[in-house]
Amino acid sequence: MPAAALTTTPTDFDGYGEVPGIHVGRSFANRRELAASKVHRPLQAGICGTAEFGAESIVISGGYEDDEDHGDVIVYTGQGGRDPETQRQVKDQELTRGNAALFTSQTTDSPVRVVRAVRHSSKTSNPSYRYDGLFRVEDSWHDVGRSGFRIWRYRLVSLFDYVPALQTPILQEPMGQDTPTRLEVKVRQIVRSTQVANFVKRAHDFACQVCGERLRTPTGSYAEAAHIRGLGQPHNGPDVAGNVLCLCPNHHALFDFGTLTISEELTITDHATGTEIGKLREAPGHQVDRAHLAYHRDHYSEGWKHSPNVDE
Amino acid sequence: MPAAALTTTPTDFDGYGEVPGIHVGRSFANRRELAASKVHRPLQAGICGTAEFGAESIVISGGYEDDEDHGDVIVYTGQGGRDPETQRQVKDQELTRGNAALFTSQTTDSPVRVVRAVRHSSKTSNPSYRYDGLFRVEDSWHDVGRSGFRIWRYRLVSLFDYVPALQTPILQEPMGQDTPTRLEVKVRQIVRSTQVANFVKRAHDFACQVCGERLRTPTGSYAEAAHIRGLGQPHNGPDVAGNVLCLCPNHHALFDFGTLTISEELTITDHATGTEIGKLREAPGHQVDRAHLAYHRDHYSEGWKHSPNVDE
Repeated sequence: MPAAALTTTPTDFDGYGEVPGIHVGRSFANRRELAASKVHRPLQAGICGTAEFGAESIVISGGYEDDEDHGDVIVYTGQGGRDPETQRQVKDQELTRGNAALFTSQTTDSPVRVVRAVRHSSKTSNPSYRYDGLFRVEDSWHDVGRSGFRIWRYRLVSLFDYVPALQTPILQEPMGQDTPTRLEVKVRQIVRSTQVANFVKRAHDFACQVCGERLRTPTGSYAEAAHIRGLGQPHNGPDVAGNVLCLCPNHHALFDFGTLTISEELTITDHATGTEIGKLREAPGHQVDRAHLAYHRDHYSEGWKHSPNVDE
Repeated sequence: MPAAALTTTPTDFDGYGEVPGIHVGRSFANRRELAASKVHRPLQAGICGTAEFGAESIVISGGYEDDEDHGDVIVYTGQGGRDPETQRQVKDQELTRGNAALFTSQTTDSPVRVVRAVRHSSKTSNPSYRYDGLFRVEDSWHDVGRSGFRIWRYRLVSLFDYVPALQTPILQEPMGQDTPTRLEVKVRQIVRSTQVANFVKRAHDFACQVCGERLRTPTGSYAEAAHIRGLGQPHNGPDVAGNVLCLCPNHHALFDFGTLTISEELTITDHATGTEIGKLREAPGHQVDRAHLAYHRDHYSEGWKHSPNVDE
């Protein structure tokens, strides 16, 4: 049983985290062996978990054309909507079952075990499966897949300081472990973000653009710079003031989960209650880019359409 | 001029981030050379910055008996209260000047350049100075120093993936770069935290213990698990339910900044207004440990005593 099993877990949830005795890099000959180990319990499903407790584990099988595997960062495609015969996407995916589980992993910040299918040189042979450690879900959104149907996507980031060198090519060539280069990129990006973030926060004097609240600290005020369209892969939003909102932490979280969206006219909708809750506050010198607000509406709000958590 | 200089900066603030052409590890023969490079502009002060904009840079000189240097994590002691002759702490430090600047670096999440004094084998020779890159301020609190007087302390964490191997011992032996060991510790800690965090959040059904708010997501609710007494060095709080509160992100931030404290009787005080704003909400099965609340009051509230940001 996993080390972190909750005492209150139902039988359809077996616990987060590492399985004792199973080290990162451990291989399993097939899904049956993998399931017996408790690393990933279902024999077929790619996601194991529940909407209530989150996802225990996922398998990256390479079956989804929209998956992206960069080693320590994975853009994973949700489940459903595929024809069982052809495995092609034939309808929209919904934020239910495994997809809802991964969303809850993000909102509860719970670690997910990641297993990769490793395909061998002979293309006809079955893959083996390798446990690649714990990841956190950093972002969840919907997109139109290559098929033209809606897919749910998840950005998973390794909780390890690094991902051990991959011995076998999997879906794509993993990013190189050229540490000095990554170092520079990371730091430069943080500093650029700080500059833009401070500009936007100061333009609003740290007041939240949704509620007007200003959190107070002994030396000033606190607000957060929320990127409307995320930086970097795969959203590729720019790090400019027009792509940033000054928000209190509560409205930042609600914006990131798609509970709040903002219209072309800057009207704010709360999708949990289905009501408009006001207009986005503006400040001289800070022009919010409407195209980025549209991107956010198009990629974050769909989860509310059939959500059991929405008011009548 | 640093790359990230704001166009609106006053002359007493020159900008965050890296100074072009100055690489991490660059050495300077003395404070005059260091100042001329713009990496750390003052000739004597250990902290360069303002309460409004935060700290540009600090020098770790080893002059403070309460500093702790672990390489990529530094517990830095604020300035003031020392006798200019003996350099001994003779009165309490206040959250003003450089100390307020470092506090603002935390609340605005702005990077701080860190310079270390490197002492050479001959104890009589003057130290040289090495630029060791950008750090973020993760935590600010007050403590009673070895002298018996109040000191301000800051936990700084390197923004680099790793700190380059130190060539010269500085204050203490830096932690080894034994990556596999650190890896296991990091992951185990995250998983343990997840288990306790989920227990507390579920005990309160994700409602904030300060305001009762429950942030809604398409698959459930969102709350944060706030550790009352921080985990790990130097606070060494335990990762148990009694040391965790279920808070909305806004009240989590305010609790961490010491704007809110909670009494033995669970009365919540807002130090920005000087008023009691209610009682901490309780839930069956979750007993908050009063000793940890006392630790939080004793280490986070003092900044409000002379704050210009407090209401009359």
